[in-house]
Amino acid sequence: MLIEETLQGFLDEVASDSPAPGGGSVSALSGAMGAALGAMVCRLTIGKKGYEAVKDQMSKYMGDLDDQKKALTLLIDMDTDAFNKLMNAFKLAKSTDDEKAVRSRAIQEATKEAIKVPLETCRKCLKVVELCDPIAQKGNTNSITDVGCAALMARAGLEGAAMNVRINLGSIKDEEFKSKVQSELVHMEKMMAEVSKKVLDTVKSKMQ
Amino acid sequence: MLIEETLQGFLDEVASDSPAPGGGSVSALSGAMGAALGAMVCRLTIGKKGYEAVKDQMSKYMGDLDDQKKALTLLIDMDTDAFNKLMNAFKLAKSTDDEKAVRSRAIQEATKEAIKVPLETCRKCLKVVELCDPIAQKGNTNSITDVGCAALMARAGLEGAAMNVRINLGSIKDEEFKSKVQSELVHMEKMMAEVSKKVLDTVKSKMQ
Repeated sequence: MLIEETLQGFLDEVASDSPAPGGGSVSALSGAMGAALGAMVCRLTIGKKGYEAVKDQMSKYMGDLDDQKKALTLLIDMDTDAFNKLMNAFKLAKSTDDEKAVRSRAIQEATKEAIKVPLETCRKCLKVVELCDPIAQKGNTNSITDVGCAALMARAGLEGAAMNVRINLGSIKDEEFKSKVQSELVHMEKMMAEVSKKVLDTVKSKMQ
Repeated sequence: MLIEETLQGFLDEVASDSPAPGGGSVSALSGAMGAALGAMVCRLTIGKKGYEAVKDQMSKYMGDLDDQKKALTLLIDMDTDAFNKLMNAFKLAKSTDDEKAVRSRAIQEATKEAIKVPLETCRKCLKVVELCDPIAQKGNTNSITDVGCAALMARAGLEGAAMNVRINLGSIKDEEFKSKVQSELVHMEKMMAEVSKKVLDTVKSKMQ
């Protein structure tokens, strides 16, 4: 599994001449780093002098971010697995009409999976940035740049995963699935732009 | 060393209640992922049918990106080391006037180091996105979303590292150093905004 690779090993695998792991797994890791940074700031707030009033709130956010981190960590491998399954579907035999039909169905199914995985990455990255909003406002000011970095990583994670969703949507024949995914994606991108701007503005104001 | 940790182990360390590794190391890793994705696209272009004319160009970019990846990988650990050195300087004795003077000098020196490291991360991330520009235009179109993700990761890496530069600049007394760093940083942020927009526009147009 990729998550058991060293950072060095993972980076070398990304850079290698194999298309996976690629942008999808990298986007999930970016989101996971955002969740980890947010959770760290909660931990650095809980129990600190001057932050007694937000202790329970921060404990809740910490638990939520640990959950997002766990989910995004799994998505690193899921994205590469989905990509490899899609590549295998393309390799299926296509000599007879029956084979062609089987192959075509397998490609459609594998493409849907290669959409659902980065779509889930988008959802999780959006949750991460939404959790960063109150943490930037009320968390330990000494760690304010870490909340900022968390938002940047979550935003890059969502935007990168969204590219992977879109490129695969192009070959989907199920119009209902396609339009449902498209509208969710547009909504999430809009929310990400709004919330990340809000978080980064808070971070900027607290850095001065 | 952090780069010998597994992805899971690194994420757990970031999320822990220790302030390092934090946003600085995460930003360097983000930049390294950008470099790795860019290098991958070069490798997936070289030797492919239809891309014969750009082979030499792509080989050059690949080598450059491998260099940036290597440098950014080292910066992951350097950032955490610089942060820990700064924390140790704060712990120096401050009972006598002599001790206070020694401590103050040590803090100033360690703060400069904690600025120089993320500043170098910014420089490398900018190089990554500059290399992504011709790769987005002329590289393998099948990997276009990976170039897009590379640009997103390099941008998030620079923006995150820039926050770490700025927060530490606040306590620098050497005005010449401060103003030199500030103007380089503003220039790099401007360049990143321009070049990343150009790359992402190219990616978007090729995804259609």
